[in-house]
Amino acid sequence: MIKAYAAFEPSGELTPFEYDPGELGPNDVEIKVEFCGICHSDLSMLNNEWGMTSYPFVPGHEVIGTISAVGHQVTQFSEGDLVGLGWHSDYCHDCRSCNTGDHNLCDEAAGTIVGRHGGFADKVRADATSVVALPSHIDKAIAGPLFCAGITVFNPLVQFNIKPTDRVAVIGIGGLGHLALQFLNAWGCHVTAFTSSEQKQKEALEMGAHAVINSTDKNAIKAAAKQFDLIISTVDVKLDWNRYINTLAPKGRLHFVGATLEPLDISVFGLMDAQRSVSSSPVGSPSTIATMLDFAGRHDIKPIIEEFSFDQINDAMKRLESGDARYRIVLKR
Amino acid sequence: MIKAYAAFEPSGELTPFEYDPGELGPNDVEIKVEFCGICHSDLSMLNNEWGMTSYPFVPGHEVIGTISAVGHQVTQFSEGDLVGLGWHSDYCHDCRSCNTGDHNLCDEAAGTIVGRHGGFADKVRADATSVVALPSHIDKAIAGPLFCAGITVFNPLVQFNIKPTDRVAVIGIGGLGHLALQFLNAWGCHVTAFTSSEQKQKEALEMGAHAVINSTDKNAIKAAAKQFDLIISTVDVKLDWNRYINTLAPKGRLHFVGATLEPLDISVFGLMDAQRSVSSSPVGSPSTIATMLDFAGRHDIKPIIEEFSFDQINDAMKRLESGDARYRIVLKR
Repeated sequence: MIKAYAAFEPSGELTPFEYDPGELGPNDVEIKVEFCGICHSDLSMLNNEWGMTSYPFVPGHEVIGTISAVGHQVTQFSEGDLVGLGWHSDYCHDCRSCNTGDHNLCDEAAGTIVGRHGGFADKVRADATSVVALPSHIDKAIAGPLFCAGITVFNPLVQFNIKPTDRVAVIGIGGLGHLALQFLNAWGCHVTAFTSSEQKQKEALEMGAHAVINSTDKNAIKAAAKQFDLIISTVDVKLDWNRYINTLAPKGRLHFVGATLEPLDISVFGLMDAQRSVSSSPVGSPSTIATMLDFAGRHDIKPIIEEFSFDQINDAMKRLESGDARYRIVLKR
Repeated sequence: MIKAYAAFEPSGELTPFEYDPGELGPNDVEIKVEFCGICHSDLSMLNNEWGMTSYPFVPGHEVIGTISAVGHQVTQFSEGDLVGLGWHSDYCHDCRSCNTGDHNLCDEAAGTIVGRHGGFADKVRADATSVVALPSHIDKAIAGPLFCAGITVFNPLVQFNIKPTDRVAVIGIGGLGHLALQFLNAWGCHVTAFTSSEQKQKEALEMGAHAVINSTDKNAIKAAAKQFDLIISTVDVKLDWNRYINTLAPKGRLHFVGATLEPLDISVFGLMDAQRSVSSSPVGSPSTIATMLDFAGRHDIKPIIEEFSFDQINDAMKRLESGDARYRIVLKR
């Protein structure tokens, strides 16, 4: 039996819940959970905001732990290996996306907390391909958030061939944004943070931003016209996107990694004049996660976290919901 | 004096109008106009739909003619050279876009009919850089539309590294779309035409489409899910863009070359799931125009035109406005 924490209805409290995971699949591994980050999508899923939650619902998809069992066809992991697991727990392994290394774009990719039980538990299972070894030079106590928040903001740099000479901005300095600043600084880019929080403006500079723009100051945004080769938006609220598009350089890109629910009301003319693009992407492939971990370790990129124990799980969720966590919450066994 | 046709108020008739162009600038050339295509943007500008028309207004930016005079610093052209002139008549020559060959993205690029007098005239002037020699293997009587409609649909193939193995679709089979089908077929792509016209469905197949989808048939669009690496939209009306985005393959792009005025109400989730992009671009640089002409000549790509004489100019504009022209109108001296 796996001992987990589950909600039994939308917005419900997380309470102890045991389930029988059945026989271990031939290509699956079982991970003994040591740490699990909390992502805003755990909360969105708990509240069934995206209409795809099944109950009992076990959140948790920023897992760090050791391999406790391997299916008989698994060759890449052995018991005791230190690994991480993120948003995806399985792939079809047979579509064009999987066959070209873009597993994260696989139509059949299984979300770790979508119709499955996640990492708020003593153990969690996943297809071995979706699990990535944690390099020894990364502190396991803070590594969990790299597997969802980290890869989500790192992946666009790989996908769009961002160059160290590029000028890049980040909208929203939270769980994702504070990692984006660190990655972009290490990537060699000029980095600008857009934030409405005065406190975060100061912290953004410490985390790698070269410049900060107050996102409530229309004139400051206007003055940044045609500067950025890439803007990564990490927020899930509606902003005046056309205002941000005007800050993009020719051929620049506004890229959404935050799951903004409201449609983007974008002017064609704002895109056309300077051949700009708008796009979005989900997390990253296992191979890009491995690349990200190697890069993060080499450049000492670290999630800034608040630690809670698993039995404080409902307090931790409330803290996340408050928006006050700096900058990511990690549950510790 | 230059003898032109001008409108004196929004939506006004075009009537004979003479103006003194002054001394020829050192970097300018004067072109004796033989042919001039009519573009929908001539009509939009005549009606001041974009709020940037000055009157008297001389339309015309798909010019074919011979060089009749050159400024004293012009070395690349001599009197009698057969050339073409498109949407842009001058560039700043000093910004990052100009310096990297992206003259069409120059902030100071001068529109041939924006605050200047265009090609519905016996002569027109332009900065020599914006003028491109017409290769001898292209029929000058039909070449005008290549300089605006042609380059507008050709440019994205260059900008986004479209591969001959890609599956590409075109929305709207008109002045731009009928050229897009020809270019894409010659480029080696699988080509699909989206059109609401039954007559055009048949013609699209003759012009290079391998498949046609009736754009009024929601189910047919739905059935094309995840097919296209690129969709070029040539229309200027509002469509259900999210429906088209669903027909994009992973990493696919919906690219606007039609000047749709209404905002694009795009869902982030539709982009995110498959790392899709939405973008837009204006015409192309002089160097891309030259590449396009070489390619068009080699592959026998030809605008299908209806010819009018310059003194039938108001009839020609009415024909354009009717939407019945197949597929582009060219004025002949």
